[in-house]
Amino acid sequence: MKKVTIKQAAEMLLEHNNIIILMHKSPDGDAIGCAYALCAALRRLGKKVQPLCSDPIPAKYGYITDSIEPQSFDVQYVVTVDLADTQLFGDKLEMYKDRVDLCIDHHGSNTSFAEYGIVDPGAGACAQIVAKILDAMGAEIDPLIADAIFTGITTDTGCFKYSNATAESYRIAADMMDKGAQNAMINRVMFDTKSRARLEAEKLALASVRFYGDGKIATISVTKKMLEISGADESDTEGIASIPRQIEGVKAGITIKEKDDGAYRISMRTTDDVDSSAICGVFGGGGHRAAAGCMIKGTAEEVERKIVAEAAKAIGCEV
Amino acid sequence: MKKVTIKQAAEMLLEHNNIIILMHKSPDGDAIGCAYALCAALRRLGKKVQPLCSDPIPAKYGYITDSIEPQSFDVQYVVTVDLADTQLFGDKLEMYKDRVDLCIDHHGSNTSFAEYGIVDPGAGACAQIVAKILDAMGAEIDPLIADAIFTGITTDTGCFKYSNATAESYRIAADMMDKGAQNAMINRVMFDTKSRARLEAEKLALASVRFYGDGKIATISVTKKMLEISGADESDTEGIASIPRQIEGVKAGITIKEKDDGAYRISMRTTDDVDSSAICGVFGGGGHRAAAGCMIKGTAEEVERKIVAEAAKAIGCEV
Repeated sequence: MKKVTIKQAAEMLLEHNNIIILMHKSPDGDAIGCAYALCAALRRLGKKVQPLCSDPIPAKYGYITDSIEPQSFDVQYVVTVDLADTQLFGDKLEMYKDRVDLCIDHHGSNTSFAEYGIVDPGAGACAQIVAKILDAMGAEIDPLIADAIFTGITTDTGCFKYSNATAESYRIAADMMDKGAQNAMINRVMFDTKSRARLEAEKLALASVRFYGDGKIATISVTKKMLEISGADESDTEGIASIPRQIEGVKAGITIKEKDDGAYRISMRTTDDVDSSAICGVFGGGGHRAAAGCMIKGTAEEVERKIVAEAAKAIGCEV
Repeated sequence: MKKVTIKQAAEMLLEHNNIIILMHKSPDGDAIGCAYALCAALRRLGKKVQPLCSDPIPAKYGYITDSIEPQSFDVQYVVTVDLADTQLFGDKLEMYKDRVDLCIDHHGSNTSFAEYGIVDPGAGACAQIVAKILDAMGAEIDPLIADAIFTGITTDTGCFKYSNATAESYRIAADMMDKGAQNAMINRVMFDTKSRARLEAEKLALASVRFYGDGKIATISVTKKMLEISGADESDTEGIASIPRQIEGVKAGITIKEKDDGAYRISMRTTDDVDSSAICGVFGGGGHRAAAGCMIKGTAEEVERKIVAEAAKAIGCEV
């Protein structure tokens, strides 16, 4: 993958038409924000552009996606945003794996699958890179684009809370608010809204908290039974993963979610001095330093023992 | 109270010496951040300055307060920060009620008790006003001052989440990060750390959630018994007040906390279209539009009925 600058990426986008913008499967706020901001800005220039994802976009992002009408055309240029690896394309985008023209990303683990790419691991959100590209393009930032960029930054930095939030994250967010980004609404929807089912699931999950290694490791379980009783779905349980690491003294918070196929989905959140990506990497997973995940097969007890043992090794504590 | 500009307030501070800076009782991050930022900046200019509060400063603010050695002197100038009303001085500062020279505040409800004052209800945090005064004073912003201002802004805006967070809040925060503010540490300590006792109290409180008015009102109870079982103290229970309003569809979230004297402390959080300050005002309380409080006497059932009835009236729903 040949590296390009912000300016070169902007020029490449301006030079092309009939562009598709690919997001990773299970799209999050940063992927969606990047794709729709770029789409809206390029359409304003008269281009045909379509964001694409293998999975449906969750309804809560409707304020970004609802006014972008679908377009179909002969694809001439393929762009990816916030996409680290072709494994994350998902079934529907499989066909584009070997023909990505431009990759815009902020994951240090990016596998360089595109012809040209700009990857900045220092950017808290990929939306910060997109904001700079829009600026270099001279694009007009309308309220929808402002909402999309703001959404990308706030979701990937945990509402500006995580260590990946830099002064630049805050400043670009402020610029977007000047352009009409609905900061309070977006933050409320993304971080301050729980369904009743989520509340019920949380109640049940809280009862399962266990501590290891003198309180440095905490686990929480989300079983199929809990989801059944509470009526919660996948998206309801996302926030539960942040609970164990929030407990005072905990360096590694581990959420163990029972999946349909007898395997367990691990979500790990760690303090700055523990690399969760390396721990999950032992089981073939990955992610960021402070937040990572993996799948482990076995009984609930085996899976818990395995992941706790690896975390204890990384922290240097006895379990 | 005669109104002054940022520049005039800066000049008044520069002209005086032997300055005490008063915080409200039960001091929060904004009061503490303002007082210690101002103190540190004025001491750098060779002045004698002391922040004062009727209540002890919680230990979690040690990164701001620990390096400020106490000074004693004949008081010549009295400043208040983030202080809306002399009722909030507390016992130990009672003596200064009628001799405040300069009031720096952001509460629209400020009772104009000082000789001179600057009150900007548009500032999400009082620390934003203090940052501008420091700038007008030409003060050097060292990492401690940066931490103090950042703390004020992030705590009063709920980690930049509430509607009172403006583009200016984000920009001043970014400036403070450039000057060394430890944003990730501060946000983790203030918003992402729960004691085990708090976790236990939360489990118990969650079981008490009740809905009224077709789900538009939710209440949660924190009883003395819950605190006893969980071992939680006052500060552990603060965050619980945000839970009921987070539930999908809830416009008014009400926390009812049993106090020693048989009375109940109400904490209310509302969506933008409901004025919690007006609802709590009916019972002699007050606060901001989105977050307010009051005390109500009676049995638990009576208190809940009364506050729910007022909230329902404001929302326009049946209970």
